[in-house]
Amino acid sequence: MAQEEKSRSGCGSSSSTILQFVPFNSLADEGFYAPCSHSQVSNHLRLLAESLPTDENGQSSMPAISRGNRNRCPVPGTLYNTNTLEAFHALDKKSLLKEEANKIWEDIHTGRAVEDSAVLSRFLLISFADLKKWSFHYWFAFPALVLDPPATLVESKRASEWFTSEEVKSVSMACNDWRNSSLTADVPFFFISIASNSHATIRHLKDWEACQADNQKVLFGFYDPCHEKDPGWPLRNFLALISSRWNLKSVHFLCYRESRGFMDMESSLVIEALITAPQGLNDHQLVPNAVGWEKNKNKYVSRCINLAKSMDPTRLAVSAADLNLKLMRWRALPSLNLDELSSVKCLLIGAGTLGCQVARMLMAWGVRKITLVDNGRVAMSNPLRQSLYTLDDCLDGGDFKALAAAKSLKRIFPAVEAKGEVMAIPMPGHPVTNQEEKSVVDDCSRLYDLVDSHDAVFLLTDTRESRWLPTLLCASANKITITAALGFDSFLVMRHGPGPFSSAHANTSSIDMENLARTDKGGKRLGCYFCNDVVAPTDSTANRTLDQQCTVTRPGLAPIASSLAVELFVSILHHPDGMFAEGDITNSTSSSSGSEPPLGIMPHQIRGSLFHFSQMTLVGHSSNSCTACCSTVVSEYRKKGIEFLLQAINHPTYLEDLTGLTELKESANSFKLDWDDERDDFDDDDDCVEI
Amino acid sequence: MAQEEKSRSGCGSSSSTILQFVPFNSLADEGFYAPCSHSQVSNHLRLLAESLPTDENGQSSMPAISRGNRNRCPVPGTLYNTNTLEAFHALDKKSLLKEEANKIWEDIHTGRAVEDSAVLSRFLLISFADLKKWSFHYWFAFPALVLDPPATLVESKRASEWFTSEEVKSVSMACNDWRNSSLTADVPFFFISIASNSHATIRHLKDWEACQADNQKVLFGFYDPCHEKDPGWPLRNFLALISSRWNLKSVHFLCYRESRGFMDMESSLVIEALITAPQGLNDHQLVPNAVGWEKNKNKYVSRCINLAKSMDPTRLAVSAADLNLKLMRWRALPSLNLDELSSVKCLLIGAGTLGCQVARMLMAWGVRKITLVDNGRVAMSNPLRQSLYTLDDCLDGGDFKALAAAKSLKRIFPAVEAKGEVMAIPMPGHPVTNQEEKSVVDDCSRLYDLVDSHDAVFLLTDTRESRWLPTLLCASANKITITAALGFDSFLVMRHGPGPFSSAHANTSSIDMENLARTDKGGKRLGCYFCNDVVAPTDSTANRTLDQQCTVTRPGLAPIASSLAVELFVSILHHPDGMFAEGDITNSTSSSSGSEPPLGIMPHQIRGSLFHFSQMTLVGHSSNSCTACCSTVVSEYRKKGIEFLLQAINHPTYLEDLTGLTELKESANSFKLDWDDERDDFDDDDDCVEI
Repeated sequence: MAQEEKSRSGCGSSSSTILQFVPFNSLADEGFYAPCSHSQVSNHLRLLAESLPTDENGQSSMPAISRGNRNRCPVPGTLYNTNTLEAFHALDKKSLLKEEANKIWEDIHTGRAVEDSAVLSRFLLISFADLKKWSFHYWFAFPALVLDPPATLVESKRASEWFTSEEVKSVSMACNDWRNSSLTADVPFFFISIASNSHATIRHLKDWEACQADNQKVLFGFYDPCHEKDPGWPLRNFLALISSRWNLKSVHFLCYRESRGFMDMESSLVIEALITAPQGLNDHQLVPNAVGWEKNKNKYVSRCINLAKSMDPTRLAVSAADLNLKLMRWRALPSLNLDELSSVKCLLIGAGTLGCQVARMLMAWGVRKITLVDNGRVAMSNPLRQSLYTLDDCLDGGDFKALAAAKSLKRIFPAVEAKGEVMAIPMPGHPVTNQEEKSVVDDCSRLYDLVDSHDAVFLLTDTRESRWLPTLLCASANKITITAALGFDSFLVMRHGPGPFSSAHANTSSIDMENLARTDKGGKRLGCYFCNDVVAPTDSTANRTLDQQCTVTRPGLAPIASSLAVELFVSILHHPDGMFAEGDITNSTSSSSGSEPPLGIMPHQIRGSLFHFSQMTLVGHSSNSCTACCSTVVSEYRKKGIEFLLQAINHPTYLEDLTGLTELKESANSFKLDWDDERDDFDDDDDCVEI
Repeated sequence: MAQEEKSRSGCGSSSSTILQFVPFNSLADEGFYAPCSHSQVSNHLRLLAESLPTDENGQSSMPAISRGNRNRCPVPGTLYNTNTLEAFHALDKKSLLKEEANKIWEDIHTGRAVEDSAVLSRFLLISFADLKKWSFHYWFAFPALVLDPPATLVESKRASEWFTSEEVKSVSMACNDWRNSSLTADVPFFFISIASNSHATIRHLKDWEACQADNQKVLFGFYDPCHEKDPGWPLRNFLALISSRWNLKSVHFLCYRESRGFMDMESSLVIEALITAPQGLNDHQLVPNAVGWEKNKNKYVSRCINLAKSMDPTRLAVSAADLNLKLMRWRALPSLNLDELSSVKCLLIGAGTLGCQVARMLMAWGVRKITLVDNGRVAMSNPLRQSLYTLDDCLDGGDFKALAAAKSLKRIFPAVEAKGEVMAIPMPGHPVTNQEEKSVVDDCSRLYDLVDSHDAVFLLTDTRESRWLPTLLCASANKITITAALGFDSFLVMRHGPGPFSSAHANTSSIDMENLARTDKGGKRLGCYFCNDVVAPTDSTANRTLDQQCTVTRPGLAPIASSLAVELFVSILHHPDGMFAEGDITNSTSSSSGSEPPLGIMPHQIRGSLFHFSQMTLVGHSSNSCTACCSTVVSEYRKKGIEFLLQAINHPTYLEDLTGLTELKESANSFKLDWDDERDDFDDDDDCVEI
């Protein structure tokens, strides 16, 4: 495709040699170039982020960059980025190069290249970025118009040798002034006229016709990125310009090179070349051939850089995760709120089968702030069902689950802000001794702080009573609350309704404000996990036999319930009414919000059975005598705080008495009411969840 | 509770000292005892697995063990094993000991103790085994009847000093004979009469009344487990027997001890004791007090051994896993076939989001033989959704998924037999060059071998066409086959029906045998993943853009589909008709097998939607023009083997032509039939599953 790049190393001083050019080399992380400034190193063409057009200016082929930087002579170019590797390889490279060369030819003929010499050097870049593997396939071309016949080299000398010593001083001064003025510093093509008194003047190409004077030495100068004995690539199109526009035959060129910021007469070259008027060169329609695809290890093949190995694994993991989520948003969920997901703080009460899977699912959805609460240690039987642990976590008595889980989450995704809190959840009906009271009071206040500092709470423990205090705290603080509970082959996943005073001002504790918690649509607020119960939570763990301590649930249940819990949570985050949204039912014709929410319906409760391979959605409203979320309980808690909690913890019947459940049960017993309980077809051991 | 155990160290030769006894020590991993056989070490009472009654003999208090072992003198005992630690501590230890002592008292009074002296030494063991933490709480008691007033020690001498040298020979010989006869070796209580000619004779206690003769020295002998200067614990009840049964006042005892298997006159003791007739000792109703709870570091507390730390973690993990599964069987699923689960060999095609979760679920159900097939490497975006990988697996280009997954499974459960096979699945419509042909042929035969050597195959890849070859191989080999496939927010889980020749003899390939594959009930066989399709699988991966290469499914989908796939698989294993079972539908009143299968219904297909939080079961029968499982295809494959496969791989329309789908599509197009396709309301990208 390109036959004329430097094929022999430069030996430039004899006559009748074809003028050769050292190709441009690309440097693909940063389109600028500068004159060569090192005797051993040629300058690359650098492509930087700012080289690319900004969004606002997306149509312009020239980026809106600041001009005048002496080390950044702009080079316009075109980037073709393909969507697939196949498309990358299938690009018609010959015609792409011709297209770019046409622009140069056009600019020479319209005179634009004389007005703004920067357009003489162009680049073309084709690329495919495999953002999954962090490998970038690319191929640069620096289109150069081919003179036919080629120019002949008459003489090539060091500038220091070619110029008289007076001229050396004068040319140096003129060049340094040109390079130091912000108006001309990045103008890479120019000409120098040296008067008979050796005074050198540098001028813009557009001044060529005006500044012809006899008896003057005239050299065409250009910033030469090359350090070798042959001139650099930019000279090629400069020759084409000079030949076709001004029809000169014998030309002197100054290959301008620098050292330490000043013109370097030792490395700069003065070249005399003969241009044989090419056939048809003045014919605007007859575009000369172009060459310029960059070689890769002497072969015409594309380059590939794999950044994965050199990148920080954590940053790679973050990019990979973001990529996945952004693709999901792009392809399927334009309204996916990744910022909200990455900033929402989730508190998981329980780091067992459910807790492990919920944490994993949250991370997969882009949640980055996760706190796990558990006071247990990893037992030998855990890793098979609790997906964050391995056998290593079980040795020497077992690590604390909360800490091991947080560590495991970081091994999966190091940028997650995962914390483990080793603590017990105080439970109603588990009386405490005076000695234990201080630690229970501490646990209550620690749990209060945790709920307060998080946006959403997942209740994932193995007993009913351990869900009571977090349910109450969430109802009082009005946090998004999701419960998942398992039976042997059935599960329940639900979101708790807003708290009884959720629409009221924070500190109000009037019992009469119950109605304020109706949803925006005026509906009754949704119930919590305890709203359907007619018994207060009490100690269910004492005297548990081994089989009662261990998981007796079908293994498939926990991943299903955990996944649904997180999907429900993400739905809440994306629903216009958030946690106030009414409960939808599968196949309900219209959703509560009018327009269809992006993630689908928003059920209140999802119950599923592996026995029947079935799943159903239910709605249950809040109960006025709920032991965890009714206004009586929440306002009593707000009034008395820890004193109230200690009462509930120490006196098994306190909550039932307070809420009127005691009375209710008595009347129920005397009338033998047939309870219309939605949970009828469910196992009693709904909450028999692995520890 | 017990006040009389040795409180001062033995100084036994002065008169008027209360006779003291060295308590028995228990050794709790192996109820036997033997005479002391080491001068520095007393023998323990050993409790072995064979000490416990066998199931067949569960009612007997004496185990059905072989008698006559000289080092295993049986000691009857009672083991109380509680279900909870609370129950262990709450046991009434005083009355338990009294109860056991009553048995001894009863045996003394009925004469049973004279007939079978082994019942004089009894033990009582209370225990609680925490099999989750591998800690064992236990407390031994060796009930001893307390003489009141206690016996007085007159004299204690080494046997070598007490006997005359002639008697030493004679007694040694008699004792050694007694110990060497299998009839008497394990009879720990006896008496020795020494005639005036120093001839010693040993006799059973039952011979006492018959063998009284004047002028004879008589000593009561017993196997003494103790090596100290005081006699061992068994002497206590022996004293009670002698005192209450024969009313003797002054008695000589031989504390029989051994060295290297022979009587040791140096360590054996002869003790003279005076028994003051206890008040009421002859009154059968008045049971004397009993002592005997073993001390733990000089305190009356129970012992606890924690085996976890000293056990091999792998064995612990196996026990823990077994415990979990056995508890599940015991509590909820008596018909759970753990042997079948642990021996079934599962082949997972695909080790991505689905493969990882399916492998985890299989392990949780007790499946121990898992092979994963995948040719990909772990990418940075994988660990967040593919639950067997961590960031470490992504470094340096990423490990092969199949191998990393197998390694990860072992970290979770080291006893799993997990293997990874790095290989590509040959796919129809992906033409191969001549060069590639060999490796494709190899892959086909490797996959054939893998399917052949496994019992069940899970299809968990991300393209339709990669499921074709395994589906065909499974249909031909009649393997249990489960498919899981994901859309953006919907999934399909299904079991393939049996192959078209499944009821026929292995080598038959007649096309007319289609009918043989009807299920036992005479129904049509269930369809495979391709039965509903009217296009043959073809290359869907070429020119995939980045978003098409990456997972675009809601994160919750894969764990749900994977869990359901494994639950469905376990249901098949437990269904009386196995893979031949007809397809059930949720809420179908009666199951196909008549009696309700233990794990619930056996659907053919389960489709679920996260958008609607819904799930439904469907039945689809096999198609006569299915490109993967119809008799035409399977018999063609059986006839031509690899030649057939290469045709299908290289010619995109070959399968459609073969099965008549081409014709069908043409007629469909000309008539514009409205396809009654069950998949209508499903996304087209059903099988867009993460790699």
